[in-house]
Amino acid sequence: MVVDQKHANHDSELKPPFDFVGRDKGPYPIILATERLSDMDTLERVHAYWRAANYLAVGQIYLLDNPLLAEPLRPAHIKPRLLGHWGTTPGLNFCFAHLNRVIAERGQDMIYIAGPGHGGPAAVAHSWLEGSYTETYPAITQDAEGMRKLFRQFSFPGGIPSHVAPETPGSIHEGGELGYSLAHAYGAAFDNPDLVVACVIGDGEAETGPLAASWHSNKFLDPSRDGAVLPILHLNGYKIANPTILSRIPEPDLLNLLEGYGYRPHIVAGHDPAVMHGLMADTLDQVLDEIADFQAGRAARLPMIVLRTPKGWTGPREVDGRPVEGTWRSHQVPLAAVRDNPAHLALLEEWMRSYRPEELFDAEGRPVAEILQTVPAGPLRMSASPHANGGELLRPLVLPDFREYAVEVPEPGTATTEPTRVLGRFLRDVIAANPDTFRLMGPDETDSNRLSAVFEVTDRAWNAEILPVDENLAPGGRVMEVLSEHLCQGWLEGYLLTGRHGLFNCYEAFIHIVDAMFNQHAKWLDATRKIAWRRPVASLNYLLSSHVWRQDHNGFSHQDPGFLDVVVNKKASVVRVYLPPDANTLLSVGDHCLRSRDYVNVIVAGKQPVLDLFTMEEAIAHCTRGLGIVEWASNDAGAEPDVVLACAGDVPTLEVLAAAALLREHLPQLKVRVVNVVDLMRLQPPSEHPHGMPDAEFDAIFTPDKPVVFNFHGYPSLIHGLTYRRTGHDNIHVRGYKEEGTTTTPFDMAMLNDIDRYHLVMDVIDRVPGLRVEAAHLRQHMSDARLHARAHTRAYGEDTPEIRDWTWPGDM
Amino acid sequence: MVVDQKHANHDSELKPPFDFVGRDKGPYPIILATERLSDMDTLERVHAYWRAANYLAVGQIYLLDNPLLAEPLRPAHIKPRLLGHWGTTPGLNFCFAHLNRVIAERGQDMIYIAGPGHGGPAAVAHSWLEGSYTETYPAITQDAEGMRKLFRQFSFPGGIPSHVAPETPGSIHEGGELGYSLAHAYGAAFDNPDLVVACVIGDGEAETGPLAASWHSNKFLDPSRDGAVLPILHLNGYKIANPTILSRIPEPDLLNLLEGYGYRPHIVAGHDPAVMHGLMADTLDQVLDEIADFQAGRAARLPMIVLRTPKGWTGPREVDGRPVEGTWRSHQVPLAAVRDNPAHLALLEEWMRSYRPEELFDAEGRPVAEILQTVPAGPLRMSASPHANGGELLRPLVLPDFREYAVEVPEPGTATTEPTRVLGRFLRDVIAANPDTFRLMGPDETDSNRLSAVFEVTDRAWNAEILPVDENLAPGGRVMEVLSEHLCQGWLEGYLLTGRHGLFNCYEAFIHIVDAMFNQHAKWLDATRKIAWRRPVASLNYLLSSHVWRQDHNGFSHQDPGFLDVVVNKKASVVRVYLPPDANTLLSVGDHCLRSRDYVNVIVAGKQPVLDLFTMEEAIAHCTRGLGIVEWASNDAGAEPDVVLACAGDVPTLEVLAAAALLREHLPQLKVRVVNVVDLMRLQPPSEHPHGMPDAEFDAIFTPDKPVVFNFHGYPSLIHGLTYRRTGHDNIHVRGYKEEGTTTTPFDMAMLNDIDRYHLVMDVIDRVPGLRVEAAHLRQHMSDARLHARAHTRAYGEDTPEIRDWTWPGDM
Repeated sequence: MVVDQKHANHDSELKPPFDFVGRDKGPYPIILATERLSDMDTLERVHAYWRAANYLAVGQIYLLDNPLLAEPLRPAHIKPRLLGHWGTTPGLNFCFAHLNRVIAERGQDMIYIAGPGHGGPAAVAHSWLEGSYTETYPAITQDAEGMRKLFRQFSFPGGIPSHVAPETPGSIHEGGELGYSLAHAYGAAFDNPDLVVACVIGDGEAETGPLAASWHSNKFLDPSRDGAVLPILHLNGYKIANPTILSRIPEPDLLNLLEGYGYRPHIVAGHDPAVMHGLMADTLDQVLDEIADFQAGRAARLPMIVLRTPKGWTGPREVDGRPVEGTWRSHQVPLAAVRDNPAHLALLEEWMRSYRPEELFDAEGRPVAEILQTVPAGPLRMSASPHANGGELLRPLVLPDFREYAVEVPEPGTATTEPTRVLGRFLRDVIAANPDTFRLMGPDETDSNRLSAVFEVTDRAWNAEILPVDENLAPGGRVMEVLSEHLCQGWLEGYLLTGRHGLFNCYEAFIHIVDAMFNQHAKWLDATRKIAWRRPVASLNYLLSSHVWRQDHNGFSHQDPGFLDVVVNKKASVVRVYLPPDANTLLSVGDHCLRSRDYVNVIVAGKQPVLDLFTMEEAIAHCTRGLGIVEWASNDAGAEPDVVLACAGDVPTLEVLAAAALLREHLPQLKVRVVNVVDLMRLQPPSEHPHGMPDAEFDAIFTPDKPVVFNFHGYPSLIHGLTYRRTGHDNIHVRGYKEEGTTTTPFDMAMLNDIDRYHLVMDVIDRVPGLRVEAAHLRQHMSDARLHARAHTRAYGEDTPEIRDWTWPGDM
Repeated sequence: MVVDQKHANHDSELKPPFDFVGRDKGPYPIILATERLSDMDTLERVHAYWRAANYLAVGQIYLLDNPLLAEPLRPAHIKPRLLGHWGTTPGLNFCFAHLNRVIAERGQDMIYIAGPGHGGPAAVAHSWLEGSYTETYPAITQDAEGMRKLFRQFSFPGGIPSHVAPETPGSIHEGGELGYSLAHAYGAAFDNPDLVVACVIGDGEAETGPLAASWHSNKFLDPSRDGAVLPILHLNGYKIANPTILSRIPEPDLLNLLEGYGYRPHIVAGHDPAVMHGLMADTLDQVLDEIADFQAGRAARLPMIVLRTPKGWTGPREVDGRPVEGTWRSHQVPLAAVRDNPAHLALLEEWMRSYRPEELFDAEGRPVAEILQTVPAGPLRMSASPHANGGELLRPLVLPDFREYAVEVPEPGTATTEPTRVLGRFLRDVIAANPDTFRLMGPDETDSNRLSAVFEVTDRAWNAEILPVDENLAPGGRVMEVLSEHLCQGWLEGYLLTGRHGLFNCYEAFIHIVDAMFNQHAKWLDATRKIAWRRPVASLNYLLSSHVWRQDHNGFSHQDPGFLDVVVNKKASVVRVYLPPDANTLLSVGDHCLRSRDYVNVIVAGKQPVLDLFTMEEAIAHCTRGLGIVEWASNDAGAEPDVVLACAGDVPTLEVLAAAALLREHLPQLKVRVVNVVDLMRLQPPSEHPHGMPDAEFDAIFTPDKPVVFNFHGYPSLIHGLTYRRTGHDNIHVRGYKEEGTTTTPFDMAMLNDIDRYHLVMDVIDRVPGLRVEAAHLRQHMSDARLHARAHTRAYGEDTPEIRDWTWPGDM
């Protein structure tokens, strides 16, 4: 009998409180729901494995000692602080146990993403049962003593996190901040044709925006060259304190929704393990067949599973007279007063003994052979998959020589180039040379950001309808564009953590949308630095174009350089920020970032024409130094400068150059030094960042005592924060963005924020001792020039030609 | 004949390129699709109004002069920079024109949210046609000269933004960053039973996470006491450069999806205005009836509309031989080279004349009476709705006296209280006293954040299934919990901007999820400060609990105090940050924030027990000062201190107090001053922030020259940034969070980041001149104490009782 999985159990049967069945009543009779799977022994083994995983999870949450319940539980065996999440754990264990069977039977390569990753005890339990935990952490042996340590270390000082974390073998997904599991799953599946990514999505997580958007990732999956994602929507009914939306909408609505997302949903619902094992096994066989059909072009849709089980399944049914199993009360620790309340202690012991540990572990505490018979071998174990430790699979990119894309610069500052357009040619050839291991992500802005050259060799990934009028769309495209920064980020994270490479190009202001995701990824990288077995992965590279200073026309809402501040707050060992001022420096920085490992690299570079400042050779030297004196713009050679004009970012650099030219024209006796900063982290001392410049070097360039006028791309406070330990920090006067924005022209935008050439000249006059008197007329002239420039924009709607077309004067 | 709206046009007819119909062919014959709407004249007037709005939109994008095309277009009439978004505009105009008819006919109160708000010319055109633009901006008269100014100012220096913006009458929704329209719409509808919020959702925006999650907002809407939202999903097929997902999935999938979200979808699809007017009018009549049924309990679902029209509808069909109408090429400016290319100029003139302006405007440029006949009157005009200028409707909250919730503090620092639990009682009574104008939002954490007292008087809003086991759920609940920070934020913004009050409580780390939304709201508030007709609205209040220092057990992913850095980057005039260290200061701050207007207030306060430090009277004085000396903890009365121990945040304050006690015990001759900072903005100079403390006062408290050890809740660089202009800033040594986190105990968490009492004592010894020698033994003792404390946590899993139970010594 093949039942209709989709409506296998009617909704009304599923309402909590559930009948409490099974564990008190001796060995479960395994009732097979279908005839296709007739191996009763196998399901009994799956069930035993599940019991073992549940037992190990409860033990992690509660026990300091007495792991096998060799003696009656006493308060001294219980942890003083009870931490962890039981509610989702039995469901996670159920999925893992069943997936193991199909992996072993089919030899299917698979990884497991636990969306409800706060159920950390589950992932740890599987790794221990599969042996990979002991392989990774030899002190945690697969015996009673190892089990004791395993229990004790969980969420214990000096131990392991309570969530699925970088420390957890087999995971690419942290279980703290919810919403990203399905995007990570698709990222892992791209270009992994033999891989199935099983992704458990909690019904709490399913309420988040990023997850809600992620369902549509199937429109970007190429069945013929990508792997498959198997979403398992786990409806256990409750979040921390509330019911979940998807568990409480009518089942026809739920099925409509999932079909509307483009999936073929299968429902597995119930609470009696005896029934549920058969249903799940049968369903998994069916969906794996459907995935094969999908990949062979015989089916149009990926299947998915809706798993409806009680929250805290098999846990305490009632505590202190209130229902717990099947309710929000089992979200974290169902029995909270175990140490002090003998009744709770007794309930805990009853609960743990209900899994019959004596049948699951031998006298030495080793898992008995029977429960391991459905566990796959070697790298097929999901807790030991090399895909989940992507650095193991990482191959370096085949990179063309970036110098071959160089812009010729016969005279600095006299011709202009669109830097991102040049980088686009380099990226085009990176894509061509790495057809299976590099992807370019962006929220519909790759063309707008002028990286269009990539479309000479590839297309945008698109697996929905394509019309004759469309351009550059194909299922196998290497450019991934969706109007969701969350998806771009999530896909790329999943792709990188499984051992591939990529770059995310984005409007600068809107990268704030993924601040929280960046934070979590940076924390992941930071944590992996301390975990020897985690092999380095490719860096997460951001290219922020369409930046604050060129959003004059889009106005205030598009102007925000604050992502840099978010980035710099994270651990210095994982974050890098680059502000290349022209095309050749962008090429050099871009090449460097694509070669790097385990960093988050943020590159801010404009798409609008900027002056070509450095020959390729100079650009390489300048980027290697990270910051340096621009000799041709300075007139202090062999002398001490009177003032340092520093800059970081393309527009601020242009304005500094123009200010230097004005000063040199009008005050030729003034010794001006122009310093450009490409690598922002060079500004910090070496104690604060690995790229930090030693104080002596810093003082030599910025001087310990001369006025420094620093024209910065972002918020001024960032430069103060990076330099506040420097000798001359009191002399550093920073100009930058200060939330003065409107719809205007490029130069007027600079003037609104006082980063313009005229204001910089006035800054210098105000700060160089004695100059205020000497240059009083010049100061007034500058002020007049600003007024004139502003009046011109108001009258004509554009900047004056002198400003728009300004180049470095050749005779200087 | 009542047609089946849902499948009124078959999908295959809708594929671009569309047949180009209508505007070249003389007046459109109005074909009515149904018999229900038989007033042909009315639809002709709607059509004329639509033509006028389209004409005004094109004029804004292109024209400097010659607004009525009184003479042939010349290059001098054209703006030098062509900016703006045409693609979405005719669709926005179409909706607005048709909504006007039903508003006028039914007297229905309605506001309009333009999700594709980059189509700014549309909203401005309607406001001008409806007369509200001239009422708001008298210089922009409703005649030819006014029209000329209207055109010229659009996206012109000194003019108005190109998106729907705070400057636009009738809007509560900025059109820059996409994804929030539907959440804003629901926020506006809550507690507005007579209001219908029409919300146009672009198919680009529909790909974002926040929008995808927002559809489920209908589970939180109470038909009997809330207003209605009418989502209009506008499928014009393309984003900037790509097709959109929802326009390219099979229509059955689309309908499944929308039904799965719980709506009753109606499709209006086509490109022939003659047909489309009838379809839209009939559909709107039907959905308004369905909304009435929904609100009367006769129907279970809200209706919605899917509007499929060509992108850039009625714009140039082809330019330079390439299709433009119906493709992504009409996203922004369909004719880009108008000034230089006579063919483009001719096309523009042909395009504009196709709307037959001579029929729409009289010789003086005034809209003819006929096209205004479907425009509603007075405040029913969507561009003049007081709901869209919420300050007009704002009533102050009825606030209980917060002093009545005070904790008794007979001796400071000796008893503990959970501050948020106390605030919960105050909020309970705020909710009770303001049953229709205050809501509490949170991502499922109101109980977890210990605000549970609110459930004594209200429930969680829930309009899906409720089971007997559930608690505190009801359709009319005032607490809104959904596992989406985006929805909490979006709903609250919509609620506030329509003149109501609220508070968003959230885990501190995960508030980063809405960084970008906060940025946009802060920019909105900043912009409205310069717009006289925008009346002040209630502040957006964040309560960040479950903060970084008490996420020791949840580990690294839950530890992030960086939202403060994001906040402080925004305009000083709109942001406020408070770190009350105990229950009474939290009450005082909470009351203050609920009374304030036009700010974003961020309150960071713990839910764990903290020492009671201030009596209510002292708390009020301390919060009013914003920062001050804690007299009882200091021993420098009448003398100059040797060291200042400063603190901000509850845990850092506790550690500073303990450090002060240690210093006073072991080094009684040392003069220690303890300073607590509640209002972080007091640290800035008055030139930087309105709350800034004058330098003289600051120097008096922090001293100009003594060492200051500042123990801070967040990242240390923030304090350096705020104080770098202060006299003694080189002497300020800041301790704070430095991304050293793991799963541990509270005190070990402090030790990991060196904000603990022992480290602070060592800091003081290292910094007070001469003390290093004198206190060498004490320094070593402190170091030993730390090692002991850490060893204890590793052995026992919790902090030592001396640390856990520490109170201020009574004999000091």
